[in-house]
Amino acid sequence: METATTARLVLLVVLVAGSAWAVQAAADESQKAPLIHALRPMVGSAGDLGRRGGVPCDSWRLAVEAYNKRDWRTVPADCEGYVGHYMLGGHYRRDSRVVVNEAVAYAEGLKLGGKGKEVWVFDIDETSLSNLPYYATHGFGTKPYNATSFNAYVLEGSAPVLPETQRLYNKLIALGIKPVFLTGRTEDQRAITVANLRRQGYSGWMKLLLKPVGFKASAVGFKSGERKKLVDAGYVIVGNIGDQWSDILGAPEGARTFKLPDPIYYIG
Amino acid sequence: METATTARLVLLVVLVAGSAWAVQAAADESQKAPLIHALRPMVGSAGDLGRRGGVPCDSWRLAVEAYNKRDWRTVPADCEGYVGHYMLGGHYRRDSRVVVNEAVAYAEGLKLGGKGKEVWVFDIDETSLSNLPYYATHGFGTKPYNATSFNAYVLEGSAPVLPETQRLYNKLIALGIKPVFLTGRTEDQRAITVANLRRQGYSGWMKLLLKPVGFKASAVGFKSGERKKLVDAGYVIVGNIGDQWSDILGAPEGARTFKLPDPIYYIG
Repeated sequence: METATTARLVLLVVLVAGSAWAVQAAADESQKAPLIHALRPMVGSAGDLGRRGGVPCDSWRLAVEAYNKRDWRTVPADCEGYVGHYMLGGHYRRDSRVVVNEAVAYAEGLKLGGKGKEVWVFDIDETSLSNLPYYATHGFGTKPYNATSFNAYVLEGSAPVLPETQRLYNKLIALGIKPVFLTGRTEDQRAITVANLRRQGYSGWMKLLLKPVGFKASAVGFKSGERKKLVDAGYVIVGNIGDQWSDILGAPEGARTFKLPDPIYYIG
Repeated sequence: METATTARLVLLVVLVAGSAWAVQAAADESQKAPLIHALRPMVGSAGDLGRRGGVPCDSWRLAVEAYNKRDWRTVPADCEGYVGHYMLGGHYRRDSRVVVNEAVAYAEGLKLGGKGKEVWVFDIDETSLSNLPYYATHGFGTKPYNATSFNAYVLEGSAPVLPETQRLYNKLIALGIKPVFLTGRTEDQRAITVANLRRQGYSGWMKLLLKPVGFKASAVGFKSGERKKLVDAGYVIVGNIGDQWSDILGAPEGARTFKLPDPIYYIG
């Protein structure tokens, strides 16, 4: 457990970094990348992970993103610094931007049927909203999931927007594709979730689908079931975006799926 | 077109790097990672890609590996240096090692039926054998695919082993799981492919499945069809490993799939 002071300090860093996201993106474009010898890529902030027989954190992250690493419980302890820097620096934002650029290009190329039946499924946590203020004070995924403290955080309704996702969201609305939120958050969190989404600038969604309280199924089972209901109701899921493979696996997946980065936690 | 001298020089680098792979791995373990400020990660060897509005090469590579980027034809020209360093340095090897570590751990945890019916599907190019000597003299994927020159290279039968994959291969044989090679190489390349695999230390495979000459289907169509024949013949595909998403998508995929890195080319 952190002391309140430590927690406050870390949170301050997060808030500063959070509000600097737009600035950071611009800075990325204007700064020269440093001259780093490419044969010795960064493997984490600990510096000597490899020598100590630890995990090469960038390879671990790649294995997570490419779905080679599954059913993992926590970020390797050695990688807390690496993941923290990844999330707070420009790297996470830049990786997200490339994913959203692909999604926008795909959406712009779609021929719509003209009957307003096309929908796009958005996950919420780490896709539409960021829980980084929480995870920054809880070890960046190196500590086991704590439902009590995490749900308390959710109920604050203060999660910041993920700006790249919002760019896609707004683009889709402009194109005439309807956003549907589909989340593992439970029905009893509907009001605060709506408030949080609105505060962060989201509006105009077609549906917000939450999990019934006490619902027992895997994330894939719940989410693919909800997508099937959409399809059965005559909607065409042209796209589906989430930070977990469980957001985008399981028929009907959607015509095209997009996996945003998330090196902090795994939901199976 | 390169001059013969340039080609020979680059090839020399590849061969040195190739034979130094085992050494490189050891070196990775003993070298301290440099002190790089984590907020400014390497985005490629060109140095100022971001400022010129180019592609952040590490984000591009992640998008490829996580299947966000699809149907791409060539590596962005700006990323030739980045991809070259990635492939020739320790990074590619290290990323591959983490994938194979997952595969080995998974295989070791399997309960086999005792009737010798369990098989594991291996792709060949960029999975079991490396064509890096070819791609190093052809722009590391930045130039369009040239079937004539690539097939001429294949017919040399000189492609080096990918040592991490071979470690998995040998482990599976020791466990009693039978390897099956399944490749987009065509039947008329069977003899040279067998010779190349043997020269590089592979032996004891159960089947080598090549594409019929003139076969018209997508890679997913061909490979999933061949996997279905295996299943119909009573085999259990416990694992499937390849460098392309088209190696591991399409039912029956295999009980567990593994995606090795490949930032050089895309096969749909």
